[in-house]
Amino acid sequence: MTYQSPVLGQVLAHINATRPTAHARLADFLRIPSISAQPDHAGDCRRAADWAAEHLRGSGFSARICETGGHPVVIADHPGTGNGPHLLYYGHYDVQPAEPLELWDSPPFEPTIVQGKHGPRIVARGAVDDKGQVTMWLEAFRAWHDIAGGPPTRITVLIEGEEEVGTQNLLPFLHANRAALHADAAVISDTGMWDIDTPALSTRLRGIVYTEITLRAANRDLHSGIYGGSALNPINALTRILGGLHDAEGRVQLPGFYDGVVPLPEEQVRQWQQLGFDESEFLAGIGLSVPVGERGVPGLERLWARPTADINGIWGGYQGAGPKTVIAAEAGAKVSFRLVPGQDPEKIFSAFEQFVAARAPADAKISIRKFSADPAIVVPVDSPIVHAAETALFEEYGRKSVSVGCGGSIPVVEAMHSILGLDSLLMGFGLEDDQVHSPNEKFEIRCLDHGTRAHARLLAGLAG
Amino acid sequence: MTYQSPVLGQVLAHINATRPTAHARLADFLRIPSISAQPDHAGDCRRAADWAAEHLRGSGFSARICETGGHPVVIADHPGTGNGPHLLYYGHYDVQPAEPLELWDSPPFEPTIVQGKHGPRIVARGAVDDKGQVTMWLEAFRAWHDIAGGPPTRITVLIEGEEEVGTQNLLPFLHANRAALHADAAVISDTGMWDIDTPALSTRLRGIVYTEITLRAANRDLHSGIYGGSALNPINALTRILGGLHDAEGRVQLPGFYDGVVPLPEEQVRQWQQLGFDESEFLAGIGLSVPVGERGVPGLERLWARPTADINGIWGGYQGAGPKTVIAAEAGAKVSFRLVPGQDPEKIFSAFEQFVAARAPADAKISIRKFSADPAIVVPVDSPIVHAAETALFEEYGRKSVSVGCGGSIPVVEAMHSILGLDSLLMGFGLEDDQVHSPNEKFEIRCLDHGTRAHARLLAGLAG
Repeated sequence: MTYQSPVLGQVLAHINATRPTAHARLADFLRIPSISAQPDHAGDCRRAADWAAEHLRGSGFSARICETGGHPVVIADHPGTGNGPHLLYYGHYDVQPAEPLELWDSPPFEPTIVQGKHGPRIVARGAVDDKGQVTMWLEAFRAWHDIAGGPPTRITVLIEGEEEVGTQNLLPFLHANRAALHADAAVISDTGMWDIDTPALSTRLRGIVYTEITLRAANRDLHSGIYGGSALNPINALTRILGGLHDAEGRVQLPGFYDGVVPLPEEQVRQWQQLGFDESEFLAGIGLSVPVGERGVPGLERLWARPTADINGIWGGYQGAGPKTVIAAEAGAKVSFRLVPGQDPEKIFSAFEQFVAARAPADAKISIRKFSADPAIVVPVDSPIVHAAETALFEEYGRKSVSVGCGGSIPVVEAMHSILGLDSLLMGFGLEDDQVHSPNEKFEIRCLDHGTRAHARLLAGLAG
Repeated sequence: MTYQSPVLGQVLAHINATRPTAHARLADFLRIPSISAQPDHAGDCRRAADWAAEHLRGSGFSARICETGGHPVVIADHPGTGNGPHLLYYGHYDVQPAEPLELWDSPPFEPTIVQGKHGPRIVARGAVDDKGQVTMWLEAFRAWHDIAGGPPTRITVLIEGEEEVGTQNLLPFLHANRAALHADAAVISDTGMWDIDTPALSTRLRGIVYTEITLRAANRDLHSGIYGGSALNPINALTRILGGLHDAEGRVQLPGFYDGVVPLPEEQVRQWQQLGFDESEFLAGIGLSVPVGERGVPGLERLWARPTADINGIWGGYQGAGPKTVIAAEAGAKVSFRLVPGQDPEKIFSAFEQFVAARAPADAKISIRKFSADPAIVVPVDSPIVHAAETALFEEYGRKSVSVGCGGSIPVVEAMHSILGLDSLLMGFGLEDDQVHSPNEKFEIRCLDHGTRAHARLLAGLAG
């Protein structure tokens, strides 16, 4: 148990003693309006990168700013003082736009401490996503540096500035810098806890296949009186095809859709049951009351560990006011599938093509495009780094962490895996009500402090 | 047989002798750009109304221009010289816009005689729709006036100026002038022949119920990763509902949809079979090859005498370029049903509501609007006026006319029936290739001349 380590004890004491300074540093970081989506703020993005690099240099890292096709990336290295695994910490310094400004109770780039039900919280754009969460490990590095001359294991840091605009320039950067970014595992703090008292590791992310289907029929729009009853109506045909995506039990009807899907480990099922997820409350928040999806499958499992099919958009024919007696020439839809471990995205895409072809009427000219095909990600939970994280969280919180899923995909996690060959430890300290991407974004000081200490503990636990 | 009547012989001879004058009058009518949709042409619409009134006065009618909420209506009366049925002739002096002008081979409002496969044709906007067809009966009245001092039966004329913009101001006008427009039957020439040698009476018009359905689910757009598998997707639900509109045999699945639909009379079935309709050719013209609709039902029957269900428009979620992982809050569609005799529009609308309700998932907030609910129209074919028309056409063409259907509805026919209590005789002389509403609209001179004589014969046949 690293808890016994006198060095860790000193590091944690140092973190506690320097809290005001650490909080002030976070406030400085938050004052930089590094909005990646708004060209006017390109200079602020660079300032945020410089600020982070300077922070890291203050902790003994060698840090540099690397150009990309967009906003720069911060790369930093520290050899560490021990021989544990080489960790690659990932975060992002860019933030979402703050609009609508009138809905903020305080200016988005003037960090403000407000008292909430969990004590003080810091309110600002980027408070939790992701400057506050990056700050936790920056401060953990700082404490290890101050007390022990550096972290107890080798560390590389990668902080990008385009996470909020799709991470598009990062992918070629990762490809081009594979050697420099070589490590044993990635550590990312951009996810959440189960609740304020229950730390969590996100160990399952669903994958996604995103498609667009277009169905063309006649060579022009037709009068429905003259042609109705003889000419193929592409909207009739498209709804008939897509209306059969699920059976009455909510199961997706693509051929072989569930092939390879393995049941959740018993232990995972039990753990999620114990979380006491209230799906009615979850749905009530969005004005709904009855869950959809596979009948008989518990809510969290449906959201985190079962595949889905959703039509994300549909169009065709006349969409204006009043009536128009037209049979359209064409109709289309966006259709996506959330995937779980065991499902091969390319096979799912082929299965969708087959599903459509089998239901396509004569004369339907169909094209299907593929926008993305990313597999689900499951973090091997019996790895040394996951065990170390569980230990760190247990010692910090006095209760076991839970292993949660994430219904959406986090593109950088897939990139870490496919480009750099790294599994990611997703240890985040956000809460569901943190207003991510919304006005009055906040981060609980309690989460910030616990998170900083948990990161310091994790490093101790991995010390070689 | 009125053919023997010496007066009719003189009338027909007069029509033949005065062809150049009649054609010149039509050309004058066509030179007036009475485009009802374009406010700049309001004065031209009034000029066209005046022109028609003047024409009628020249044939002994009392004619007046009546104001409406839009372009004026021409009303004219002639007591006739005999005691046959009182006929209400309906036509319209307004025309469609001529755009795109660059696709015309001659200026749309400079009528031009062009040689075609059927001999000379007159090319101009409105040539067949409806100035040329109105001219046929105007010239028949003129000939009866010149030879016999007036038509052999009482006639009222109603020529409107807003047919091409939806006839909206005519309906209150009909209501307000029911007494003045009292008659025994309506005569309308705004339809077509089967082919250049085969005259036709349109005896069946499908009705229509036109609806809009909206399905709302969550109170806002959702992230499909976070909510997919639990939250109702309104597009999934809408396609599932509408995808079930037809069974595999092409039959509409609304409860009781076919209740009251009577099989076509044997005689009608046989007549349509003999027409030799080539559905492959019909579909090839629009880039299709395989008919849809009820399996096993002949093409013309599906187009003219069987009900349909068509989705005329659909929308929901993300319709832009690329992917967006959204579960929409709402989706909607325009859905219409073509009706045949025996179907009650209000019952069909209720059946659609039931159909939707039975398939609506929990939490779906559904609203269905009704834009129109018009029954099908079938002209009783054993009436004296239909027999007289058949005789007139037989004597003019030397072959029997056919009784055809019309897949669409003609709103004024429904109005004649519901507001004035009149059946309509639909005796038209257009051809399928007349380019109605398109550049280079034309009317065959052969059709014009035959049509004028057929109208003159019809009047003789109805003389009391």
